[in-house]
This record gives sequence, C-alpha cells and structure tokens, in this order.
Amino acid sequence: MPGGATITKRLEEAADRVTVALDTLIPRVQGPEGRLMSAMRYAALGGGKRLRPFLLIETGRMFDVEERCLLRAAAAIECIHTYSLIHDDLPCMDDDDMRRGRPTTHIAFDEATAVLAGDGLQTLAFEVLCDPETHADPAIRIALVEQLARASGPRGMVGGQMMDMTADELGDDLAAVTRMQRLKTGVLIQAAVSMGATMGRAGDHGAHMLNTYAHDLGLLFQITDDLIDVEGDQELAGKTLRKDQTQNKATFVSLLGADQARARVSHLAEQAKGHLGMFGERARWLSALVDVVANREA
Amino acid sequence: MPGGATITKRLEEAADRVTVALDTLIPRVQGPEGRLMSAMRYAALGGGKRLRPFLLIETGRMFDVEERCLLRAAAAIECIHTYSLIHDDLPCMDDDDMRRGRPTTHIAFDEATAVLAGDGLQTLAFEVLCDPETHADPAIRIALVEQLARASGPRGMVGGQMMDMTADELGDDLAAVTRMQRLKTGVLIQAAVSMGATMGRAGDHGAHMLNTYAHDLGLLFQITDDLIDVEGDQELAGKTLRKDQTQNKATFVSLLGADQARARVSHLAEQAKGHLGMFGERARWLSALVDVVANREA
Repeated sequence: MPGGATITKRLEEAADRVTVALDTLIPRVQGPEGRLMSAMRYAALGGGKRLRPFLLIETGRMFDVEERCLLRAAAAIECIHTYSLIHDDLPCMDDDDMRRGRPTTHIAFDEATAVLAGDGLQTLAFEVLCDPETHADPAIRIALVEQLARASGPRGMVGGQMMDMTADELGDDLAAVTRMQRLKTGVLIQAAVSMGATMGRAGDHGAHMLNTYAHDLGLLFQITDDLIDVEGDQELAGKTLRKDQTQNKATFVSLLGADQARARVSHLAEQAKGHLGMFGERARWLSALVDVVANREA
Repeated sequence: MPGGATITKRLEEAADRVTVALDTLIPRVQGPEGRLMSAMRYAALGGGKRLRPFLLIETGRMFDVEERCLLRAAAAIECIHTYSLIHDDLPCMDDDDMRRGRPTTHIAFDEATAVLAGDGLQTLAFEVLCDPETHADPAIRIALVEQLARASGPRGMVGGQMMDMTADELGDDLAAVTRMQRLKTGVLIQAAVSMGATMGRAGDHGAHMLNTYAHDLGLLFQITDDLIDVEGDQELAGKTLRKDQTQNKATFVSLLGADQARARVSHLAEQAKGHLGMFGERARWLSALVDVVANREA
C-alpha cells in the first residue's frame, strides 16, 4: 500500500495531465464565438480534484491501456462533470457565486454564456470519445459513449439533479436520499471506472468487481460530502457550505447523525477495498484512493 | 415531381412517426424525477415541423435503410433541436414565452426544470444513437454520434448560438451573418442529411452531392426564416415575430432587403434541386421539400 504522500503525488500528476488534455481539446478561439470557448476553458481548466478522471485513468492503467487514450476519455468525463457544475450553479438552480475558490461561470461571464458553455462541454465530451484517437476500435468507442451518456442522462446524473431540485417531495427517507445521491453523483463515478475497464477489456468478472468497488466509493464520496457541508472549512472547500441545513434538505448526516455517518464511511471504505482483492497489487492506487476520499476535508 | 398535396402528406406522416418514436424513447415516469421526463415530453412531443427528421428519413429511404432505424436516428436529431429551442427560449437567452403556439418549457414548468430538460434531451440523443437498435454496425453508430456531436457542439450549433447572443459584435456584414446562421441552423440540417447518407452507405460522391444540397437548403431555410420574421403572420408562426427588428439584429432581410432576399431564395432553390440530379427519381421527396421550404409561411 503506497503512503499518503505518494497517492497525493499520483493524484496531482493525473490532475495536471488531465488539465493539459483539456487545454488542448478546448482551444482558444478568436472571433465572435471565442467567448464560448473562453467560458468553457474557464470552467474546465479552473482546478478541481479530477476524481473521475483519476478513476478512469488508474483503472485503464491496470490493464495497460495507452496513456494518451486514457487522457482523452478522462477529459471527456471531466467535461460532463464540469458542465453539470456550471448548470448546477446557475441562479435558477443552486444559485452559487463561488466554486473552487473562484467566481462561478455565470458570475465571471453571464448567464447566457454559462448555459451555452455547459451545453458545449456536454457535446464536446461525446465528440472527444468518437475520435479514433481515443480508441482504435469503434465498438469500444461506442461503448464509451453509451456508458457516459447513460450515466449522465435523464436516468442518471440529470435525473438526480431533478430529484435534488424537488427534494422537498423526497421526504426524510434514507432510501430516497440514497437513490437521489446515487443518480446525482454515484453513476458518473461508476462510469469512470467502467469506461477504464472497457478500454482495458477487463472481462465480465473483473468489470463486475470494479463496478462494485465504484458503487461503494460513490456512496462513500457522497457521505463525506455531506459531512464536509456540515463540519467543513469554507475556505478549504472553495464553495459555500451549510447550504443543506439552510435549505432544510435531508442528507446522510441529517438522517443518520454525524457519528453514524462517519461509521458508515469506515465500513464502506473497508468494503470498497475488499472488492479489489482479485487484482492484488495492480489495484493499489484505486485502493489508496478510498482512504483519500474517506479522510478528505474538502 | 409529386404535387403540393402529396409532399404535405408525406411530411405529416413522417412527423407523426417521429412523434411516436419520441413518445417511446422518452417514457412517462412516476416518482421525483418524473417532472424531468414530463418537461422533456412537453417540449419534444409538442409539435414542430420535424424538418430535420424528415431530411434524415428521406435520405435514408433513398438507400433502402430500415424504417425503424431511421426513426431512431431521426428522433435523436430532433432531441438535439428541441433541447436547443428550450435553452434558447430561457429568460437569460432570447426570453420567449411562446413556441409552437404554446407556453415555452420554462413557462409551463420552471427555469430549473427547463435547463435540466434541455440537458437531458441532449444526452438522450446520444444514448439513442449508441443502441444497436439504431444500426447493427458499431462503426456506423459511432459515425452518427460523431456527425451529430460535431454539428451541435461548440464549433457548430452552440457556437452559432453564442455568436447570435453577441450579435452586436458581428457587425452589419453579410459574410458574418451567413457564417453565424450556418453554424446556428445550417450545420444541423446538413447533419440530418449526412446521417441518413451514412446509414445508407451512400458512398463519397453521393454523400458529397447530398451535403451540397443540404448546405443550400439550410441557407434557404434561414433566409425564409428572416422573411417570416419581418412579413409573417404571428398566429401562423406560433412564436413571437419582429424580434430581429426590435433587437436591431442584422439579418439577411435587413442586409439584402426583402426583394433581394426573395430572389436569393429562388436561386438557392433551383441550385439545391440541381445537386440532386445524379439520384433521379429517388430524390423526388428531397427535391419537393425545397419548394416547401422556399414557399413556407411559418
């Protein structure tokens, strides 16, 4: 098991490479449509943990997939994640002014530009996956498009966003909150791992175990997110905290209490790492990531 | 050449079948995310000329592509068109209350739901294209995704929308207005034809001639759109007219004058039909469509 410093470095390296890939894929453009590209670049290149890209890249590396292909697919999933943040921050949605310690896209530009930048980043994700540079085999490329579309569409991320917007109808029900969070965040985290596994032709059993790992990691991620919202440091988080309380939203913490939520994090962390057993040392970075997510403060 | 009544019937039949296909692809859903599907259905099933689907279907029929496959691809391109209308109508964009004679989606639901319904329709388009039901060959499916993504993304439709939003920077320049309109509307019309040609494996020369046809048709469509905005009947159009004048936007009509614009429509119509010569009778419906678009009043 690599130490804390090592996984931190590995995460930073991957994040930097993904940023370079995004910088190439979203070019600076002169002329009237240049504003669109600027806003897309502002949102996509402005930091972030790059958790989904890391998952995709490390999964693919387990099966010796070429780095340049993994970086393209990783950039695509980050485009989807970034677009969802831009739209989520809009005044008619969560109305957030700050994200990653900077003004949100609609503040830095304007609302119309933010809507279009989100739209364009979604399309770009699929454009990038279609390119033979991402994978030589069209059957693999179409599988990647399918996994990303399914995870981010109406029966995935967008459906979860809608549930979140109408959260008052959800009720104080742990099952309903779990389902909403699974759609809103979990399925895209799972897609990152399954896309890496698909590129690596991991096989049915391997893909299944990785999927189970990603399922637990996604849930763990969300519970720590709720804990940070309640207990976290706003400066460190780079976004507005305590919003769930203010909006009286049911969360894992409000339903379970902080102690129970923390206990669940520990349990899920052990369980997630357990699913990686068949891969041995090859899965060491996916395993180390679990502890990073479980112990994160932002 | 079929008479006016016949092409009208052919258009209606195709529109009905596309609506049925969309009705199947966007299911009614119970539960908290049901609102999202309702809004997507409201926008997608609420009429429209279904011009892009018709172009895709009729192009595919020229090469004997299976009807059920064409309808899926046609529904996908209509999802993209519909999502662009929903977002275009938002208060922060064109701020339109009426579309196709009904309240726009953000009026009938709310802004957050409209943003998400647009997002979800975009994703759904790619989801539908990925499915083997759309075409058995993954290489064809990925080509469809690529064509649709490229046409609707930052270097296509979304880029055109951005140019339209910053139209005051465009200047009174016919070349700039032509380019903006080509991106905003033309490329998606061209994609409809090229997707049909791809499904039919039309071959390089055939695909090129069809593409040239679609290019002229797209431009013709936009000039008639500008003419309708100036001279049209608001009731018939089902949307707010005279907006370009009010917003002082440069259009084909403001730059050329109505007479010159009409002359250009006639010229483009003859030219578009001319490109279909090599296909003879097989292209009769694509040819008849040119006159429908040239003479439309809504």
